[in-house]
Amino acid sequence: MNKGRVVERFYAYVDANADRFVAQLERLCSQPSVAAQNLGVSETARMVLDMLRGIGADARLIEVADAPPVVYGEIGGGDKTLIVYDHYDVQPPEPLDQWHSDPFSPEIREGFLYCRGVADNKGDLVSRLQAIEAYQEAMGGLPLRIKFVFEGEEEVGSPHLAQFVAENKGLLQGADGLLWEGGRKDMAGRPQIYLGLKGIQYVELRATGASRDVHSSWAPLVPNPAWRLVWALSTLKDEHDHITVDGLMEHVAPPPDDDLELLRRIPFEELKIKEDLEIPQFLGGATGMDAVQSLLYAPTCTICGIVAGYISEGSKTVLPSEARVKLDFRLVPDLEPDLVLDLLRKHLDRRGFDDIEIVPMSGEHPAKSSPEASIVRAAVEAARVVYGQDPVVYPLMAGSGPMYPLSQALGIPVVSGVGVGHAQSRIHAPNENIRLSDYFESVKFTGQLIHLLAILD
Amino acid sequence: MNKGRVVERFYAYVDANADRFVAQLERLCSQPSVAAQNLGVSETARMVLDMLRGIGADARLIEVADAPPVVYGEIGGGDKTLIVYDHYDVQPPEPLDQWHSDPFSPEIREGFLYCRGVADNKGDLVSRLQAIEAYQEAMGGLPLRIKFVFEGEEEVGSPHLAQFVAENKGLLQGADGLLWEGGRKDMAGRPQIYLGLKGIQYVELRATGASRDVHSSWAPLVPNPAWRLVWALSTLKDEHDHITVDGLMEHVAPPPDDDLELLRRIPFEELKIKEDLEIPQFLGGATGMDAVQSLLYAPTCTICGIVAGYISEGSKTVLPSEARVKLDFRLVPDLEPDLVLDLLRKHLDRRGFDDIEIVPMSGEHPAKSSPEASIVRAAVEAARVVYGQDPVVYPLMAGSGPMYPLSQALGIPVVSGVGVGHAQSRIHAPNENIRLSDYFESVKFTGQLIHLLAILD
Repeated sequence: MNKGRVVERFYAYVDANADRFVAQLERLCSQPSVAAQNLGVSETARMVLDMLRGIGADARLIEVADAPPVVYGEIGGGDKTLIVYDHYDVQPPEPLDQWHSDPFSPEIREGFLYCRGVADNKGDLVSRLQAIEAYQEAMGGLPLRIKFVFEGEEEVGSPHLAQFVAENKGLLQGADGLLWEGGRKDMAGRPQIYLGLKGIQYVELRATGASRDVHSSWAPLVPNPAWRLVWALSTLKDEHDHITVDGLMEHVAPPPDDDLELLRRIPFEELKIKEDLEIPQFLGGATGMDAVQSLLYAPTCTICGIVAGYISEGSKTVLPSEARVKLDFRLVPDLEPDLVLDLLRKHLDRRGFDDIEIVPMSGEHPAKSSPEASIVRAAVEAARVVYGQDPVVYPLMAGSGPMYPLSQALGIPVVSGVGVGHAQSRIHAPNENIRLSDYFESVKFTGQLIHLLAILD
Repeated sequence: MNKGRVVERFYAYVDANADRFVAQLERLCSQPSVAAQNLGVSETARMVLDMLRGIGADARLIEVADAPPVVYGEIGGGDKTLIVYDHYDVQPPEPLDQWHSDPFSPEIREGFLYCRGVADNKGDLVSRLQAIEAYQEAMGGLPLRIKFVFEGEEEVGSPHLAQFVAENKGLLQGADGLLWEGGRKDMAGRPQIYLGLKGIQYVELRATGASRDVHSSWAPLVPNPAWRLVWALSTLKDEHDHITVDGLMEHVAPPPDDDLELLRRIPFEELKIKEDLEIPQFLGGATGMDAVQSLLYAPTCTICGIVAGYISEGSKTVLPSEARVKLDFRLVPDLEPDLVLDLLRKHLDRRGFDDIEIVPMSGEHPAKSSPEASIVRAAVEAARVVYGQDPVVYPLMAGSGPMYPLSQALGIPVVSGVGVGHAQSRIHAPNENIRLSDYFESVKFTGQLIHLLAILD
């Protein structure tokens, strides 16, 4: 079997079906699926199920109590098994007034496709199904077995994925590799591959005061929960952006030496990033290798949202009756979600903030794979073939995801990255988009990865 | 002229026209007039103008650049002149989901009338016009000249009232007394009279970060304006609710001895207030005379609203690009709006927060009148006649208002209070309401006040 020739047939099929593939992607993106707002999630699961069946997979919805269904499927056969993980839910589209087109009406402008979820992660999901369709049609069949796990609440922290894995271990264990939800090119257009990610603990802190909002003239006597929250928050992180939650930093493991070696090979376009975000410098003035190390190995405590009282135009002299803040802690080894919750509660109590309620909203463990696994070697080689250059390999990613239960907990090595996005895809922000030429490269990457994984030791 | 007999004729007229008076009040309350949202303000001015003309006043709209018109009118004649000040704008109705009926569809339930603005201050405005109508009809004319100043932006801090007074000084100066916008009964149902009020400086603080919201995984490197705001705020007031803006407290004059004497006579229903607001204690555990003194003589720094990032249901892992807080400073003698702005700017700059923008939103001076003025004596006596008990006289009120330009700046003594509201009128909050029986007492109080002011030395 001539490796080059078959791949050319596969490539040709992808090119010949480009318009149909884009139309199929637009169809899925038109369907809102905002897990945080319980919007359109079950409709989307049904659409994804139909798409899986459309490429010939034996697919079904697997229910998990109190969660959107997992769309599960199997296709192909052979000695090796690849699990493909993606999610069909998306981030909320807000703030709506900053979108140039409707977030759920895909629009192509100058070679870019704009829509909420197109980069994170519906584009990856659809491109992988299309790669498998193309591989089968062009090559006459698949060289390995592929199992699909498409969940519907990744953007709210995948609170039930561990339970799904526990309840369906028989379907999943023993796989040779896990292809994680897709990534994006870096600012220079280089493909990126990730071998792990940070964990996360997302919480809402709630402070309450009087039984109702009152006129602000009562301020000398009536407690203000917005002030309580400000004072409590100011004890969690100092003005130098150092986390000051009692004991938290003591649990942070230093990066191992071979991780530092991988870090040194990461090209970091810091000037472009600063220019793009219009910030004069990174926090603490970090540059170069220090900045990369901070990004990947520093735990975080981030105010994602805060609200109390009157927030519309003009002034209203009101003393609010409640205040809420959403905080996300990104967890590097050896921080774990439950540990952070415990430290946070004790830290607040110790300072008299036992009136402030902590509502845990999602927790995920950090996870990390070996660079020697066949799925990693196949991905690196597939990227070289498709993109004509070495991919940039990150030992960890700055973001989080529910990688742990499907990979580390089952002993399945994982690779993430080389998805449909680019550095300006604006994921989680208004005007999320992908470049269409990246999209087709990513379809080809997946086909090439399948091809190589089947023949690698 | 028998004082008792004429007043009885006036009372009888009010009682005979009760239904029509309520319908007239409901009509004005049905018209939204939210200055903060520029909603319905000019329509309301026109309605008030028609009502003034309806009672025979020579009335017109007086324009002030960039402001809603002042509805001005004159009626009656004689040696003495009374100015009546009210405002036809109302607070925003938000949060809408906490109203039991539509905020702009007046609804009577068990003797109470619910509507945004009915207590603050459309009820007072309408009740005073009806008192004057009734006085004229029952008594054959007015015993003094009355001038009306009804403005349309009190709830956003009356930013143009001083300018209106400056441009129309000829109409206003030399008046014998000023009847300020109405007040309400206290928790025991006693009428209240105020001889002054606190000033206010309302500001919005704005912090900005990156050019757009970004994924929160960037938190180790990208500045977070929500944290900037939290740190800046935590330097303005400490956990004991002491204002820590550099130098601010040095400008606070202690209450004069005769004010303290008035304070001692103020019955303060602290248990009822705490029960009503469901708070175990006042700030700092203040009770009795200390609590009254704090309420009336302590300056404040209140978070009226704060917002950044994602504030809807569920979680969103976003690092916000801007954060805003609305702060109101209540000003006792000798604090002045410009002084507070200056101290705040210097305080923030001194701590490296020169990136935080201060947007001044409204400023008002404190104001205070002598208890010996004829308008004060007439009000106290009118309250005794109508309510059958001594009113509670406050040397200052905890709230603010644009009293200064119309009173202190022109040398016109002022009295405020004995309006249509009660202690549970929920002004500035959802389900604002008045008790209808209070409403008619307040109509009668105004007629009695006019009667007494005309004959007092």
